Amino acid sequence: MTATRLSGLAPEALAAAARRVMARCDELARVSADAGAITRVYLSPEHARVNRLAAEWMREVGLATRQDAAGNQLGLLPASDPDAPVLMLGSHLDTVIDAGRFDGIVGVLMAIEVVRLLRVPDGDGWRSPYPFGIEVAAFSDEEGTRFGKALLGSSAVAGEWDDAWWDLEDADGTPLREAYREFGLDPGRIGDAARRPDQLVGYLEAHIEQGPELDRRGESLAVVSSIASARRFQLVVEGEARHAGGTPYDMRRDALLGASEAALAVERICSGEHHVIGTVGQLEAFPGSVNVIPGETRFSLDLRGELDGERDRVWDAISRELDAIMGRRHLRWRAREVHNAAAVFCAPLLQDVVREGIHATVSGVEPATLFSPAGHDGMSIGAIADVGMLFLRNPDGISHHPSESVSSGDVALGLRALAEAVAHLGAERG
Amino acid sequence: MTATRLSGLAPEALAAAARRVMARCDELARVSADAGAITRVYLSPEHARVNRLAAEWMREVGLATRQDAAGNQLGLLPASDPDAPVLMLGSHLDTVIDAGRFDGIVGVLMAIEVVRLLRVPDGDGWRSPYPFGIEVAAFSDEEGTRFGKALLGSSAVAGEWDDAWWDLEDADGTPLREAYREFGLDPGRIGDAARRPDQLVGYLEAHIEQGPELDRRGESLAVVSSIASARRFQLVVEGEARHAGGTPYDMRRDALLGASEAALAVERICSGEHHVIGTVGQLEAFPGSVNVIPGETRFSLDLRGELDGERDRVWDAISRELDAIMGRRHLRWRAREVHNAAAVFCAPLLQDVVREGIHATVSGVEPATLFSPAGHDGMSIGAIADVGMLFLRNPDGISHHPSESVSSGDVALGLRALAEAVAHLGAERG
Repeated sequence: MTATRLSGLAPEALAAAARRVMARCDELARVSADAGAITRVYLSPEHARVNRLAAEWMREVGLATRQDAAGNQLGLLPASDPDAPVLMLGSHLDTVIDAGRFDGIVGVLMAIEVVRLLRVPDGDGWRSPYPFGIEVAAFSDEEGTRFGKALLGSSAVAGEWDDAWWDLEDADGTPLREAYREFGLDPGRIGDAARRPDQLVGYLEAHIEQGPELDRRGESLAVVSSIASARRFQLVVEGEARHAGGTPYDMRRDALLGASEAALAVERICSGEHHVIGTVGQLEAFPGSVNVIPGETRFSLDLRGELDGERDRVWDAISRELDAIMGRRHLRWRAREVHNAAAVFCAPLLQDVVREGIHATVSGVEPATLFSPAGHDGMSIGAIADVGMLFLRNPDGISHHPSESVSSGDVALGLRALAEAVAHLGAERG
Repeated sequence: MTATRLSGLAPEALAAAARRVMARCDELARVSADAGAITRVYLSPEHARVNRLAAEWMREVGLATRQDAAGNQLGLLPASDPDAPVLMLGSHLDTVIDAGRFDGIVGVLMAIEVVRLLRVPDGDGWRSPYPFGIEVAAFSDEEGTRFGKALLGSSAVAGEWDDAWWDLEDADGTPLREAYREFGLDPGRIGDAARRPDQLVGYLEAHIEQGPELDRRGESLAVVSSIASARRFQLVVEGEARHAGGTPYDMRRDALLGASEAALAVERICSGEHHVIGTVGQLEAFPGSVNVIPGETRFSLDLRGELDGERDRVWDAISRELDAIMGRRHLRWRAREVHNAAAVFCAPLLQDVVREGIHATVSGVEPATLFSPAGHDGMSIGAIADVGMLFLRNPDGISHHPSESVSSGDVALGLRALAEAVAHLGAERG
């Protein structure tokens, strides 16, 4: 790989860009459905507000903006050849409930700053200096907080939309189809969001690690080798609601105790595996009265593995254990799979340019290469384009939590590494 | 005890009264906050509607009605001496969530029918034939569904109101004080609901068993020896909300797994005891996202025992086990006690009159004597009056569930037994 250090990346410019990223993370954090917390879900009024803010910041650096048919906010810096394919840079703007302010967001804002660092004047506007355009993507739904199904925004871009999803309902019973209309989108035009493989040079995303590995090593940046495969299930355990006082233990069919055993079985089975992790994040008992034995319990299972096969083998083991638990307790159980994403391996070329980018930024250390147990939009975009990712140190590995953090210094290093990576790719394809 | 068989209880009159009770249980079941289910909580519009219906039915049998300062609906059949104390007959009209149609309700409606069977003409109206008046009480909050604290209605009558309860909040954050005002009651007048011991001859309640014992024995009616002691707690487990994918097991402090172990520990400890039972009926994980490790879990614990000492010893054992579980998992836990009711032993005289009433109704069998693991309004009224209870067979012991049932035939037998019991008490005190 040819060394093509960028000349224009003055430390002051990088520091200013990093400060802008941090300030905008703060500004976006104030756009929330919950006072005093950060919660921003798909197709909500908050989604519309952050799209407008992102579009404004995209136009400020010369991008031509549009919101696509799935509510993703896009901004294009064209190549000199208007028919040239684009390199997509981005991440997502939606959040979990009571989220941190960096997961996804920092990747979108860094992409905008990378455009500012790399763009060259072209008449009254700006263009990409490379044989490809640069398109910044702010995906609309990566977390799946509202409808349980993750990656809805990038799945539409990947042309992998499943019409069965239109019937997914949020907690208030609003179907996805209806939420589209309320947001001002036309479900019948979802296909317009899809991109063809020949339109894309690749997809590069910067993201906080969401794990402790870089922090434990004392390093700022890492190349990502692959994104874990993931499956998500909504499980229901059915027993019988009865009076808490009058029902002896031998007559109880307590759905909450069955679900409690299930949650502990997930922990026991997964913690015995290498690189497979399972989490029960939602659990609710019904009817939910203090003096009634729960007749039904619903809970979620999020299962991830470095390899699809390992993950599936663990799900089989969990299923067998659930059969045993529920059989013993005279309960019924069922699972509905709401998300299934195969592991995505980052493209060797894009791993190389990210590694070169880190090399150009942090000299003297061989960059860490990590796999990502967390899911990312690259999981869907991988169906139509090569994917590469850059991880930023995430102190103590705390993510999906208000204490989630990243330092301004690491953002500055990440901006340089990402810009260098794009420049390397430009040289490779020049 | 003198045998004082009632002469006027013709089988047709009892059957008609039982049919009226069953039809009115159906009518009250239609007064619900949830379409297609029965949910009727304290100080709700449904509470006001069933009070109006009960008052109408009370007036129909000649009772002088009033709603007291705690929203209890009362109806008085006076004795010939207007200063004579009263025998209180009744139960409650509130329900759990998605309830059956008989728990509490059948006892109120049977009390009204017993008045119809026993009253004697007095001028234009009716009076009690005994040296005590008969007062029918429809208590307003026995279940504690809305505010977590049970027995609010009868606690006010017992003069055991605790001003700390005014700050209890429902699921929407409405404090009890505010709910009183919205219902049209004045919190400042709560003391007016209190009755003095010298005003009461005793309290008799008919109730479905809420357990399988009578059904297992093939019998219709039982004398109740005591009402279990109960404690209720709201527990909170605190860990740390983190990303479900990126946090390795050795860094997790999963509050839901801690709560799951706690629920199973309650089952393990209580099921090893005789006549102690513990139930986790409510459980919720926060933030409640599919891809976030729960940082907090809240759950309820309902603990009952035949004897206060046994129950308290079990709570101590559960507490020690929670210390061990949460210590091992690096979680914190705390419990707030929201209800504490000592076991109430039914008065020997009232047990005797109920037993005589059953004898007079179902000949040839020594009536079963059961203790009640379920709580009842008698737990509070026991502070100011002798308490007696009559249990009706509850097929399969299913209660707090839409399938809860009682047969019209058993209600007819129960009406006779309760009327005979009142007559026996009249003879005893004559």
